[in-house]
Amino acid sequence: METNLQNQLDTLKSSLLSMAALVEEQIARAISALVNRNIELCNNVISSDQPINMMELEIDDQCFRLLALQNPIASDLRFVATSMKITIDLERIGDIAVNIAKKTKELIEKPDLKPLIDIPQMADLAQTMVTDSLNAFVRGDNQLALQICSRDNEVDQWQDQILEELLEYMVENPSSAPQVLQLIFISRNIERIADHATNIAEGVVFYSEGRVIKHHADDGLN
Amino acid sequence: METNLQNQLDTLKSSLLSMAALVEEQIARAISALVNRNIELCNNVISSDQPINMMELEIDDQCFRLLALQNPIASDLRFVATSMKITIDLERIGDIAVNIAKKTKELIEKPDLKPLIDIPQMADLAQTMVTDSLNAFVRGDNQLALQICSRDNEVDQWQDQILEELLEYMVENPSSAPQVLQLIFISRNIERIADHATNIAEGVVFYSEGRVIKHHADDGLN
Repeated sequence: METNLQNQLDTLKSSLLSMAALVEEQIARAISALVNRNIELCNNVISSDQPINMMELEIDDQCFRLLALQNPIASDLRFVATSMKITIDLERIGDIAVNIAKKTKELIEKPDLKPLIDIPQMADLAQTMVTDSLNAFVRGDNQLALQICSRDNEVDQWQDQILEELLEYMVENPSSAPQVLQLIFISRNIERIADHATNIAEGVVFYSEGRVIKHHADDGLN
Repeated sequence: METNLQNQLDTLKSSLLSMAALVEEQIARAISALVNRNIELCNNVISSDQPINMMELEIDDQCFRLLALQNPIASDLRFVATSMKITIDLERIGDIAVNIAKKTKELIEKPDLKPLIDIPQMADLAQTMVTDSLNAFVRGDNQLALQICSRDNEVDQWQDQILEELLEYMVENPSSAPQVLQLIFISRNIERIADHATNIAEGVVFYSEGRVIKHHADDGLN
């Protein structure tokens, strides 16, 4: 029974990592589509969402069977409960990648705007947060998880700066409003990816220590 | 043991309803603050978020103890798993109400814009979806839950229409861009409230029937 539980937990962990790999790839492709104005890549991102949705259902089912049949306790129970929450965040990151791809498609149909220097950098940061949050989960690495929570502020600062620049640009070039608005939406989507990575990192701290840092992020970082 | 389980499930249900009541009040106050340009009410919404966050942690803890000590099975297990997910949605709706209050504060500091006819109507619809999704949960009312999922499209249509109108207004009045942008953000926040209500409704179908309609919303409505 014990070995069976361990096997099922290992399977669950590996399913989560596969789902995370798909999600990371979706973010990378959506941003590459934006930078390179590549419609084909946008369509590719949009059509690749379904396997991620299916994985969420499959992982939920694994968690559910584990809870019903194996009665995990202590850190094993926390692992299963955290996994159920991580899949929600991963699935929503997947949805956000699709949103970025859709907005990018609309953007490509309009005349090109100023270079997108800041947005890809902000996206790099958010994407690294997702990768690191999953690494922290796999290794039970609390220090890394706490570090991710603090990086969320950095993304928020990027977001504020980008918003200010784009707003200024829009006031000076009113006819560019529709394109600028798409870029603003895209930068907000990237900010939400970072928020989800932070949720995952908070879950890691709960799973590995049984300590809740959600809603106390600042305390946890002092 | 059985009675103890039932008592704990009842306590969990009543905690969820208390949390939902707080969240609904936050949405109502945020929209009222927007309509009446009331800064005090905005501050009130912003400072009232903490009890909601605390309730999320408290409910998570209740679920966790239930899973660890009572080994619920079948529909009881689905109820606990669904409760864990519903609190995530409720907490995020609470955050969105705070976001709306913050954006409203920035808006009030600037000159008044055109009347906000459509946004409060869209907010009404989203708020009713939240109330109904919780009613569906309490009653295990699948029909109501499925109906909520279909109302999500209506909110999306409002959102598209509002966006189009605001964008047009902004192109004609470039200096209004900062205010218009806040309104666009607010309408997107309301759309996200409706998305969370839909998540809750999908959870209700899962809890009451054991049937997953997530990612199959259209199938479920035929």
